[in-house]
Amino acid sequence: MNDQIELYGANTGNSLRAAIALEESGIAYTARKLDLYAQEHRGPAFLALNPAGKVPTLIDHGTTPVLVINQSNAIIQYADSIAPGKLAPAQPGPDRTRVIDRYFFFVTDVIAPSHAAFFLHQAGQTKAAAIIDLRVIEQLTYSESFLTDDFMAGAQFSMADISAFTIATAFRDRLDWKQLPQLSRWFDTVEARPAVQRGLNVFNHS
Amino acid sequence: MNDQIELYGANTGNSLRAAIALEESGIAYTARKLDLYAQEHRGPAFLALNPAGKVPTLIDHGTTPVLVINQSNAIIQYADSIAPGKLAPAQPGPDRTRVIDRYFFFVTDVIAPSHAAFFLHQAGQTKAAAIIDLRVIEQLTYSESFLTDDFMAGAQFSMADISAFTIATAFRDRLDWKQLPQLSRWFDTVEARPAVQRGLNVFNHS
Repeated sequence: MNDQIELYGANTGNSLRAAIALEESGIAYTARKLDLYAQEHRGPAFLALNPAGKVPTLIDHGTTPVLVINQSNAIIQYADSIAPGKLAPAQPGPDRTRVIDRYFFFVTDVIAPSHAAFFLHQAGQTKAAAIIDLRVIEQLTYSESFLTDDFMAGAQFSMADISAFTIATAFRDRLDWKQLPQLSRWFDTVEARPAVQRGLNVFNHS
Repeated sequence: MNDQIELYGANTGNSLRAAIALEESGIAYTARKLDLYAQEHRGPAFLALNPAGKVPTLIDHGTTPVLVINQSNAIIQYADSIAPGKLAPAQPGPDRTRVIDRYFFFVTDVIAPSHAAFFLHQAGQTKAAAIIDLRVIEQLTYSESFLTDDFMAGAQFSMADISAFTIATAFRDRLDWKQLPQLSRWFDTVEARPAVQRGLNVFNHS
């Protein structure tokens, strides 16, 4: 436990990616679970931290002014900046750039459409949501081609794996795993990482 | 002109953001225009560079192996890494983190949904697309609250402005500008920047 850095979140993909990034980086932090059903993310205390009323939000009390980060991907990149080498090669160059390139593939071409589909589901647009979900499955299937080495962007675990893992989990029952031997192997390897497990469970008991 | 770095693209938001980032960073490059109507992005020469058949793609022939970047946001972050200080404060800390945080707001909460809406338009899901477009407009309207200083993430132009600008341009005719005095002022300021103008026009005559 460390009260300098707090991560407000819940069991959502965005919160879990941020938690896994902190765990994989070895950054000490305190998880603060919000009860989304009780609308805690819409209450005045949380809105003062994040006016958009969304999780996750990271607070770092060790900086002046206090640092508040509202975007899960900005939290991931913050973790990379304060613990260099854990989520991507520290040195600029082709290896680091490949990590960033594939990380953004999952952020913008897989996770973001899945959020749009979820939004459409809630709006009653079931058919449109299904069309987008099919596209998400196609993109996840395409990522099989990234796995020429152990991880999504080379021999080293990286932020590309973090961005890929929670969305692959969400679509776990809809992927044709027998046709995806590399993705299947990769998924089991990532799921077994102790830091990934800690991140996945941090909002269960905080 | 400089043949070490090539940017393949067309007049799409993703390509223009990458071009503006290179221009604002002062990085020399050669723009290579692809004719999307003629399906040049689906031809074998381009697919060898980007198997997903999408623009933009950046090639840097100055590294070994040759660097190929397929994601527009990875190109923007690459520009930031080789020209520190131009697209975000170079030093880690609250100022840089605010830039990254707001940059991701536009990438994941504004641009990405607009891409989903475009995809749905093409699939004939007009009503669903309109629902998402309304959400994009709400998010752009929310960004008025970011403009407590000259730019989207403080006193300095940054990658947050680049990510905001092309999507604001795309929704230019659908924003209630009279209710958005800060956004209106910001838009005019960004549009008038010489590097922004060069980026916007680079695929018109390459």
